[in-house]
Amino acid sequence: MMAKFTLFSVDDHVIEAPHTWVSRLPAKLRERGPRLVSNPDDEYWIFDGERVKPQGVEASAGKKPEEFTMGHVRYDDMRPGFYDAKARLVDMDEDGVRAQVLFPSGIPRICGKRFFDAPDKELGLACIRAWNDYILEEWYGAAPDRYVPLAIVPMWDPQLCAEEIRRTAALGTRGITFSEGPHLLGFPSIHDPHWDPVWEAVIETDLAVCLHIGSSGQSLAPLPGGPTAPSVVMIPLYASVACSELLFSPLFNRWPDLRFVMSEGGIGWVPYTLERSEYTWHRHRFWTGDVGVAQPLDVFKRNIWVCFIADHVGMRDRDLIGTDKIMWEGDYPHTDSTWPNSQSSVADHVKGCTDQEVAQVTHANAEQVFRFPISP
Amino acid sequence: MMAKFTLFSVDDHVIEAPHTWVSRLPAKLRERGPRLVSNPDDEYWIFDGERVKPQGVEASAGKKPEEFTMGHVRYDDMRPGFYDAKARLVDMDEDGVRAQVLFPSGIPRICGKRFFDAPDKELGLACIRAWNDYILEEWYGAAPDRYVPLAIVPMWDPQLCAEEIRRTAALGTRGITFSEGPHLLGFPSIHDPHWDPVWEAVIETDLAVCLHIGSSGQSLAPLPGGPTAPSVVMIPLYASVACSELLFSPLFNRWPDLRFVMSEGGIGWVPYTLERSEYTWHRHRFWTGDVGVAQPLDVFKRNIWVCFIADHVGMRDRDLIGTDKIMWEGDYPHTDSTWPNSQSSVADHVKGCTDQEVAQVTHANAEQVFRFPISP
Repeated sequence: MMAKFTLFSVDDHVIEAPHTWVSRLPAKLRERGPRLVSNPDDEYWIFDGERVKPQGVEASAGKKPEEFTMGHVRYDDMRPGFYDAKARLVDMDEDGVRAQVLFPSGIPRICGKRFFDAPDKELGLACIRAWNDYILEEWYGAAPDRYVPLAIVPMWDPQLCAEEIRRTAALGTRGITFSEGPHLLGFPSIHDPHWDPVWEAVIETDLAVCLHIGSSGQSLAPLPGGPTAPSVVMIPLYASVACSELLFSPLFNRWPDLRFVMSEGGIGWVPYTLERSEYTWHRHRFWTGDVGVAQPLDVFKRNIWVCFIADHVGMRDRDLIGTDKIMWEGDYPHTDSTWPNSQSSVADHVKGCTDQEVAQVTHANAEQVFRFPISP
Repeated sequence: MMAKFTLFSVDDHVIEAPHTWVSRLPAKLRERGPRLVSNPDDEYWIFDGERVKPQGVEASAGKKPEEFTMGHVRYDDMRPGFYDAKARLVDMDEDGVRAQVLFPSGIPRICGKRFFDAPDKELGLACIRAWNDYILEEWYGAAPDRYVPLAIVPMWDPQLCAEEIRRTAALGTRGITFSEGPHLLGFPSIHDPHWDPVWEAVIETDLAVCLHIGSSGQSLAPLPGGPTAPSVVMIPLYASVACSELLFSPLFNRWPDLRFVMSEGGIGWVPYTLERSEYTWHRHRFWTGDVGVAQPLDVFKRNIWVCFIADHVGMRDRDLIGTDKIMWEGDYPHTDSTWPNSQSSVADHVKGCTDQEVAQVTHANAEQVFRFPISP
């Protein structure tokens, strides 16, 4: 297939292969790291005594909406591209996608939270390192021009984070998947100088900082007697909250060159949030005591990028966001994945865009943000 | 002044006069109802043993942003229009505002929560009735062509709510100020048939149901070490959540004619929320189990109205919202109040609108929603 658009997807997920940890953890931790238990009646991951089952909604690409399920999906019933780097390249070619940024699945959770929660920090850190090595060796290693590796970091210790950032960056990692709301995971807030060792390492290694939806652990539960759909509508809600925190954050006074990516956050809410942030800056910063902070729009232009899968409103208002700030993502293999119709989905979203705008949104911004040139 | 626009503001607040409750409560409850204690050193309301002080941000109209304050403001230092119906008419004339919908201040709280929380329900109910009578007698009574009375309702008992709705509607009340998130106040969710007596009374009396921001008690607290401004940016956040709950709610199957108003919720987020709700309906309603629900856009068109004070993004995207769904509000006398520049603020927002669109947004929609004709 001749792909019309050069697509660089800034948010996709690996379903970790069953051997990911057992083949990497030191012998004394191997039995306690995540391993897949598979028998004819059941299949599940077990980690430090706890069972975890991959959900159908995590492994849905190519299915019809009527077939999506919260139920368990076995590896044998998944497309190999979900968990195998070489098989995924075939799927990417079919979809006309040149590059993918790789996030974890629900086993580590989106920023590695399952390993932060491990009472044994030695085990947690070993599992984090094993995941990062798995991505670098088996995915990035298989196609260093197609797979953009991210690292998860041991958020309970900023110095350890910095070490893991430097270690993985040296091997090819282009960004970290951090939390959109560290305080909601029990850590100091994103504004706190506590995180300075992380930012120092990120700046030194020139990595992007991805804040994926769900990485604060915040989500709306369906109300008793009510529909479930609103909780799906509102999944990106906290992205706008996290963005507004960044727009006024003192952290950029110390680290003006940080690159934050609001992964899977959508873009249609951005013009409203920017207008309301500017309005708040002009009208309310005196009584709120935020007199000295930078103007939010300047922070946005310099430090924040936003991403969409399906968001016509945001693309219509692209002049209010800036086409240099918008990146496309495919979310393979989750339920929102556009596979195998990414080319037509993007075509539908960039109608009326100039060639330069199309280039920015489909790949050029991503190339810059992730320092990952793909253009011929 | 010849006002260019006929302005019908759908959200303003009374600062209750000191005599509001003491002049109305039965003798045995009078000492326990809200009363103002005023001495040279201090001034505060006291209710059932608890002290409450009106905040400067509630009483700010006409001040410069540099003068807004969270500190206490005494009645003697307020403009009389904040708490006096006749004085306010002068302010409204100066501002070119024909009509105002009247919400409570922080004494009752936005949907009357302070009275729901009273352990003595007889006292709570008496305070609610007194507030409703105060609005009807002293405000609506002073200018029945200018003041649009709302009622607060005793949410702990739907039958009592229905009685108060019928009692006040007979006296001129045009809507109720309900909670955008009843479940967050400890009641059943908005979807629950528990509320059917309320909806039955609202339909019978043809009232609007206002869901004002803050009426769920949900707000973002400033983060430790972080700025306060993001919590101001995000004040309307729950309006979008409440709206998405309504868009999928089964309550409209039973009550298809309800009119919900997202008071002070803003409008710039609406196109995004509508697109994402439609997307969710098409793509996710199968696995979420919401197969039979109505399409969200149809619900929005029929049952929901949205409001703005300052929101250029939303007005730019008015074709995606529908100018029949947008209403202007002045928020007098809070910090966001446009007084005394409402005419120029509206002029700035309706640039490029047709005459019909201007009429809809400035007054015609409000006349219909609140059954309160003011033209010409």
